[in-house]
Amino acid sequence: MATKQKVSFAPSIRRLPQYLHVIRQAQSNGGEYVSGTLIANELNLEPIQVRKDLAITGIIGKPKRGYPANELIKAIEHFLGWDISHKAIVVGAGNLGSALMGYQEFKNNGLDIIAGFDADPSKIGSRIHGVPIHAIDKLDQVIPEIQPEIAILTVPSPFAQSNCDSIVRNGIKSIWNFTNIKLKVPDSVSVQREDLSSGYAMLSVMTQMATKNKAENS
Amino acid sequence: MATKQKVSFAPSIRRLPQYLHVIRQAQSNGGEYVSGTLIANELNLEPIQVRKDLAITGIIGKPKRGYPANELIKAIEHFLGWDISHKAIVVGAGNLGSALMGYQEFKNNGLDIIAGFDADPSKIGSRIHGVPIHAIDKLDQVIPEIQPEIAILTVPSPFAQSNCDSIVRNGIKSIWNFTNIKLKVPDSVSVQREDLSSGYAMLSVMTQMATKNKAENS
Repeated sequence: MATKQKVSFAPSIRRLPQYLHVIRQAQSNGGEYVSGTLIANELNLEPIQVRKDLAITGIIGKPKRGYPANELIKAIEHFLGWDISHKAIVVGAGNLGSALMGYQEFKNNGLDIIAGFDADPSKIGSRIHGVPIHAIDKLDQVIPEIQPEIAILTVPSPFAQSNCDSIVRNGIKSIWNFTNIKLKVPDSVSVQREDLSSGYAMLSVMTQMATKNKAENS
Repeated sequence: MATKQKVSFAPSIRRLPQYLHVIRQAQSNGGEYVSGTLIANELNLEPIQVRKDLAITGIIGKPKRGYPANELIKAIEHFLGWDISHKAIVVGAGNLGSALMGYQEFKNNGLDIIAGFDADPSKIGSRIHGVPIHAIDKLDQVIPEIQPEIAILTVPSPFAQSNCDSIVRNGIKSIWNFTNIKLKVPDSVSVQREDLSSGYAMLSVMTQMATKNKAENS
């Protein structure tokens, strides 16, 4: 039930951060009310789509005036759980892992990265963006001590599944997977995949088409 | 026409890097031939889906034997344009931009980042992962000199559209957008959006559900 709900709402959930951005911008320009039509125009969407998406947060707009900006922001943040703190660890403190540790936008929205893990001895015992780095073979020891809710997986692909197994074994239920491996996890664990290779594949195909069009038009 | 084609093939294109990964792994384990069924099992997909996706690269499998691994890898890489080099710039050399400059997997697949741009005076003139960093207000001067095909946009949101305008003005047709702004570009320019806020929204909602389930079951 929970899983089905998650899947059908997924596109709406994915759009909420964009709405939040537009609403905050409108508010900082002095807007006390924000209409679904304004948000829709700004993001090139249909107004009915925006109103349906916002309805999942439980807020209802006022005819002709729209939504009170302050309440709308709070409703979206509350629905997303961005108004409370979520303890997280980063497994793999390479370039991408380090970048995520320092990403202010996630911090502002409740992501509290309390530890990092890496195999590189020169990193172990140091801090990256203030986050202490532990040895990656200490996952089984450190996770039960600090009890994070979320694991962010940014290790090289060959180590993805074995580190995932440690994460799952120690009771973490949410994994943000930045590797290009499809992780095998029990049904009780959710994986959010962020596959940069997929995005790069789309970009490459787009770029080839653009080059072809340029050649044909010249 | 080109755009419609791109859209309808998008899910297939997005899966190709995962296939590539599975095929390379099978090959390194000594497999000369790889079957669609093996790939499908490894990635939890239907074999017919895998065969349809692979068909867009032009390769046809042999009944009972599958695909010759070497030819299949080459066909996917060629279709994606990963067998040739694409000159790119990174606009915004913060944590994420720096991480992308050092990402070996993209380098291996043809992404050649030749310059970075940032507003921070302490970075200008330096190199990050070997990539020279220029002042961000020199975009209009440097782009025509080095003629990149791709711009990777990793600036803070308030600067996204204005930097995008410089990129477009100087003839770049492919933009990889890591900001949470929906960029306004002419039809001739393609934007691939990589919205980490969307992923984080999904992760947060998943995490809340997991916490709720845990509480209900305990």
